[in-house]
Amino acid sequence: MVRIKLSNRAKNTPPSPIRKLAHLANQAKRAGNHVYYLNIGQPDIDSPEEFFEGLRLFKNKVVAYDQSQGNEGLCRAWSKYINKTLQIETNSEQFLITVGASEALVFLFMTCCDPGDEVIIFDPTYANYLGFAAITGVNLAPVLSNMAENFALPGRAEIEEKITNRTRAILLCNPNNPTGTAYSEEDLKFLLDICEEHNIFLIVDETYREFVYDEAKPVSILRVAPNNRRVIVVDSLSKRFSLCGARIGCLLTCNEEFLATTLHIAQARLAAPTIEQFASAYMLEHINDNYLESVRNEFQSRRDALYYALKAIPNVLVHKPKGAFYTVVRLPVDNAENFAAYLLSKFSYRDSTTFIAPAAGFYIHRSEGVQMARLAYVLKKEEIVKAIEALAAGLEHYQRLQ
Amino acid sequence: MVRIKLSNRAKNTPPSPIRKLAHLANQAKRAGNHVYYLNIGQPDIDSPEEFFEGLRLFKNKVVAYDQSQGNEGLCRAWSKYINKTLQIETNSEQFLITVGASEALVFLFMTCCDPGDEVIIFDPTYANYLGFAAITGVNLAPVLSNMAENFALPGRAEIEEKITNRTRAILLCNPNNPTGTAYSEEDLKFLLDICEEHNIFLIVDETYREFVYDEAKPVSILRVAPNNRRVIVVDSLSKRFSLCGARIGCLLTCNEEFLATTLHIAQARLAAPTIEQFASAYMLEHINDNYLESVRNEFQSRRDALYYALKAIPNVLVHKPKGAFYTVVRLPVDNAENFAAYLLSKFSYRDSTTFIAPAAGFYIHRSEGVQMARLAYVLKKEEIVKAIEALAAGLEHYQRLQ
Repeated sequence: MVRIKLSNRAKNTPPSPIRKLAHLANQAKRAGNHVYYLNIGQPDIDSPEEFFEGLRLFKNKVVAYDQSQGNEGLCRAWSKYINKTLQIETNSEQFLITVGASEALVFLFMTCCDPGDEVIIFDPTYANYLGFAAITGVNLAPVLSNMAENFALPGRAEIEEKITNRTRAILLCNPNNPTGTAYSEEDLKFLLDICEEHNIFLIVDETYREFVYDEAKPVSILRVAPNNRRVIVVDSLSKRFSLCGARIGCLLTCNEEFLATTLHIAQARLAAPTIEQFASAYMLEHINDNYLESVRNEFQSRRDALYYALKAIPNVLVHKPKGAFYTVVRLPVDNAENFAAYLLSKFSYRDSTTFIAPAAGFYIHRSEGVQMARLAYVLKKEEIVKAIEALAAGLEHYQRLQ
Repeated sequence: MVRIKLSNRAKNTPPSPIRKLAHLANQAKRAGNHVYYLNIGQPDIDSPEEFFEGLRLFKNKVVAYDQSQGNEGLCRAWSKYINKTLQIETNSEQFLITVGASEALVFLFMTCCDPGDEVIIFDPTYANYLGFAAITGVNLAPVLSNMAENFALPGRAEIEEKITNRTRAILLCNPNNPTGTAYSEEDLKFLLDICEEHNIFLIVDETYREFVYDEAKPVSILRVAPNNRRVIVVDSLSKRFSLCGARIGCLLTCNEEFLATTLHIAQARLAAPTIEQFASAYMLEHINDNYLESVRNEFQSRRDALYYALKAIPNVLVHKPKGAFYTVVRLPVDNAENFAAYLLSKFSYRDSTTFIAPAAGFYIHRSEGVQMARLAYVLKKEEIVKAIEALAAGLEHYQRLQ
């Protein structure tokens, strides 16, 4: 058989810890079990009617390329939306529309870093950051955060210890995927101060910005440090409007040189999808404020349901997440990936089972995450309760097997 | 003012020669001129009604992520479509759906090459290949083809001279963007033989597969070398169905190891857009064969109109393209980019002007392309004739100025 060498970077790109057990979930379904998908941040919330209305209003006869920087109407609508919700002043020229936040992050890594350059992240981190780093040749320098401290930011000395002459940026996801930590204005100022001292970028992924609970208000770096040229924000409609499949994200900065340079990369890939941009622009112009408020309330009650259900399981360590729709838990097992595979392939409880994402893939210090799992509370409260019941039953069985 | 270092790879990514003068075209429009866009491969042909019908049939309430490998229905429909039109046997598992052919090419470069590895291309080449190579750290090794020979493939010795121990693939665009050359079955066998001897991949970008003229039949590597593990095909719905803005492409290979490795990269970016995939699947299942036949006929008559109009201009060197919807011409000017800028910013003819893409950006041997331009025949015949009239008048004026 012909064998041709493949690149090391492709071979070393880690498979998604969120998706890698999907084939076992398919098996479980084929075996007649209901699967509770807590592995993936795919909400079950209806996408806004205004998006579908926008879709129906697309009347062009030719589905033509849009601008490489993004549909002008969408840039304007997004800027207006952000200005209104955060009481700030961005303008549409500061936006570059991307194919989801994913593409924005790949563009950012490419624009900030040559291969071998470094970006500081907090461990555990969104697993796909590891993928983006692998394909762009960026070295992620992880600073560990701990569940015992609700995954708060590490201290200045711990962060600065990781800064070298190849460090180009600090990347923060706020509110955090996978931990659910919501960082404060002080946290952002603290990181910005470090970035200023070392003349590096501060990249904040605000995909989950409005998902903060217990009466908290969204904390955006755009408001904390307006018009700061070292700040790059990544944003996305995926989670906020349950539009994961629309693949509409952006990067946003007042740094024109940065945007102009990134635009060369964006031109090479031509443009983001035309129709989804058109529908998104219409939606942002017309969406009712109540949509997001009711979604936020729904997720808060799901968070509570998940948290208390998990807390009731013996020997499961859990912290109360304050934002996004994830949490990381420590399970009383040697290896959470083996346990996750067991739940899908060898276990069922009342004809159902639960799909959890092993957290080792979210850690660069992988050993820290071996006993941990990330859970997304993206299902209805009743389903979350049942999913955790199945998980608890699975744990009991599994421990007896060991 | 804060200045923070940007990466060399971003700074070295060439701006698109197709899009870099777009601001001048906007100026010309604001000044009241009609602009004939021959710079970009954006056809004016209506997208198929079946695509819009598919769009209307999307009834999911949640626009959820699709599979990283692509929507299963779309993979099946595309495979069926290819099997029918080329009389071959692919299967849906051989497909990976991408955000346009652009993303497929980025994935391919990443999977075949580590930074510093090499891919052989034929000069002139599709300009965005240069962009993809820059962002992925791949070195393109160009072998020059010549207008005097209708940009035929160079000889074996010339190609093999460029093969080093870092060469990973030969990349061919067939039919060719920017030259309009349609390669034969013998051409493909010849390249495959070289790839076999040197154990490298043969990547064929078949975005323009059906656009071949003068009674020719499409020549696909999939038919010439079925089930060959060193062959990777890039395909796209953009041009064939006038769906450039849908951003639906794919890569296709029977090499499972290659696909599985590329899938890690694809997982990191989650998925291609859900709705556009759904509509594309519906379209491929239901499209009438006449659509493509009438589009092909239309482009053939445009090709003829363009070719004869260009031939009539003194001192313009032109060859007769056999496929795709581009041609490369040599203009009697010192620098085609300056001339292109002049047409947009300092010239008008009957309140109109013509936007051409300077061809230096399509050449790695840039000096070879300095006097050349790429023209896309994507407008109606009458408009093409007027566009070339304006171009001819512009040339006359410009030469008098020199």
